[in-house]
Amino acid sequence: MIRIGIYGYGNLGRGIESAIRQNSDMELVCVFTRRDPATLKLNTPGVSAVHVDDVLEYKDKIDVMILCGGSATDLPRQTPALCEHFCVIDSFDTHAKIPEHFAAVDSVAKANNKTAMISVGWDPGMFSLNRLYAGCILPDGKDYTFWGKGVSQGHSDAIRRIEGVMDAKQYTIPVEEALSAVRSGTEPELSTREKHKRECFVVAKAGADLERIEKEIKEMPNYFADYDTTVHFISAEELKRDHDGIPHGGFVIRTGKTGFNKENSHVIEYSLKLDSNPEFTASVIVAYVRAVARLYDKGDYGCKTVFDIPPALLSPKSAEELRAELL
Amino acid sequence: MIRIGIYGYGNLGRGIESAIRQNSDMELVCVFTRRDPATLKLNTPGVSAVHVDDVLEYKDKIDVMILCGGSATDLPRQTPALCEHFCVIDSFDTHAKIPEHFAAVDSVAKANNKTAMISVGWDPGMFSLNRLYAGCILPDGKDYTFWGKGVSQGHSDAIRRIEGVMDAKQYTIPVEEALSAVRSGTEPELSTREKHKRECFVVAKAGADLERIEKEIKEMPNYFADYDTTVHFISAEELKRDHDGIPHGGFVIRTGKTGFNKENSHVIEYSLKLDSNPEFTASVIVAYVRAVARLYDKGDYGCKTVFDIPPALLSPKSAEELRAELL
Repeated sequence: MIRIGIYGYGNLGRGIESAIRQNSDMELVCVFTRRDPATLKLNTPGVSAVHVDDVLEYKDKIDVMILCGGSATDLPRQTPALCEHFCVIDSFDTHAKIPEHFAAVDSVAKANNKTAMISVGWDPGMFSLNRLYAGCILPDGKDYTFWGKGVSQGHSDAIRRIEGVMDAKQYTIPVEEALSAVRSGTEPELSTREKHKRECFVVAKAGADLERIEKEIKEMPNYFADYDTTVHFISAEELKRDHDGIPHGGFVIRTGKTGFNKENSHVIEYSLKLDSNPEFTASVIVAYVRAVARLYDKGDYGCKTVFDIPPALLSPKSAEELRAELL
Repeated sequence: MIRIGIYGYGNLGRGIESAIRQNSDMELVCVFTRRDPATLKLNTPGVSAVHVDDVLEYKDKIDVMILCGGSATDLPRQTPALCEHFCVIDSFDTHAKIPEHFAAVDSVAKANNKTAMISVGWDPGMFSLNRLYAGCILPDGKDYTFWGKGVSQGHSDAIRRIEGVMDAKQYTIPVEEALSAVRSGTEPELSTREKHKRECFVVAKAGADLERIEKEIKEMPNYFADYDTTVHFISAEELKRDHDGIPHGGFVIRTGKTGFNKENSHVIEYSLKLDSNPEFTASVIVAYVRAVARLYDKGDYGCKTVFDIPPALLSPKSAEELRAELL
């Protein structure tokens, strides 16, 4: 059994708790929280919440610690700190800061003979892997990543900060014509506006100036100004009824040419359609927990990413079974 | 530079020759053939064909030997035999015999301190990898593989053996309704007939009984009897003009549930649309040649499959570059 600790109990932490149940070689030891542990209602009988201050008491009771905090401020601090005492895995997703985060975690992991993994999930994660594989197979080509249809938390939050807005949900949606153009193999250059559009469902406060809110959304720099954005004003009840989920997904497509005269075209496409973004991310992390535990057992220390992990290490099956059943 | 030998110069061998040009860290040393080398016209200036009898003269001049023979009779003999002297890679694709082939190659590779890879391509190969990854991420789910639209050499050959048939080309085509049903996440049980249909383009000899030929095709056990099959009689000119390529492709789809009450559904889909089946297979093999050469340099001997290879080993880029650019 792989003994797991969950560090942080938001959407991702609950997703991890649920995913562990689907893997019979794993066991949840406890959930660490900054809140008062007594206030946390877990979903796993017999497992309790523990305050983060007491985490070191679990040094020898946990094989892999899964960090479920945010990438902005939690993980850059928590992953290296916990790696001093535990094998760790996180879903750090600030793409531009990955090299820096990797270096920090790697040095602690190596100094303390621990195995760590960062940036595990679907993007970064499975999408990255597909960009890597497809790029190596078709060196003369171009790849494209589309996100959605799915909820962007950051964009929803940005709308909520506008005066007069009570609540909001924003969907990122790939533009169908752009997907078709990419799949045709013509390697189009696509602008930000051509690739994705944005759809917003907004609950306004009573008496708020809807026209102003819509204008502020559509003209918001970085978030909306470069996109075709649609704004729908709906009631709080409608938002709750129709937009309560956290779906997401997307497409990684690479097209490329082969042949002595580059006469043949190929399309490699990987896509995800997810009802729950945090539960799917959690499911990817939990599969990679198996790899972390196995690398640690072999004495393979330091920080890893999905690029470093032999795929067989994710599976509970033996190499023989995998070759016989899946190859 | 990775020095490569091509063993066998059919469609796959030519695909390898072409793929090597797209990878600046690789160099073709020579092509080995059972035919009279003087009769072979290669496409790479300065590279010559050599008779297979002289292969051992190249023991120290080749880093990885790529075997391009057939799975039925060539590879089961050639891969273990050549592995005594070379690091080897093949695209052995008789799924049921992979464990046996693996064992044979593995024991020779280990006894001679060589690194070998078998069953590299897209199925087995990239499709297998996607079955593995998706199955580990969504343990409560079901996966489906569809092939096509593409040319099946075996089925085309079977038609050509019918009396009165001059030439023929057979396409395997996934049934659109089956793909939709799978993507819906309902995990349907699909019969052979429900998953794929077959379309045949047949050139009949002058005066042949077309009705009998069509009947023989449609009733042929294993090959056609279990499928909805369409037969078109066309002229030799039309066959040459419209059906000269070797396109293929397909879909690996896994759907599965997550959540404490399995309330959320997810769809993972990987698809290929290939103008040239042998050139794409060759492109996958050439990417994995890089992994074979690197494992050999590290002293990691024995037989491997795509399941064993850390993805980063396929890339000419450094681990730092990959993390910064693709993760």
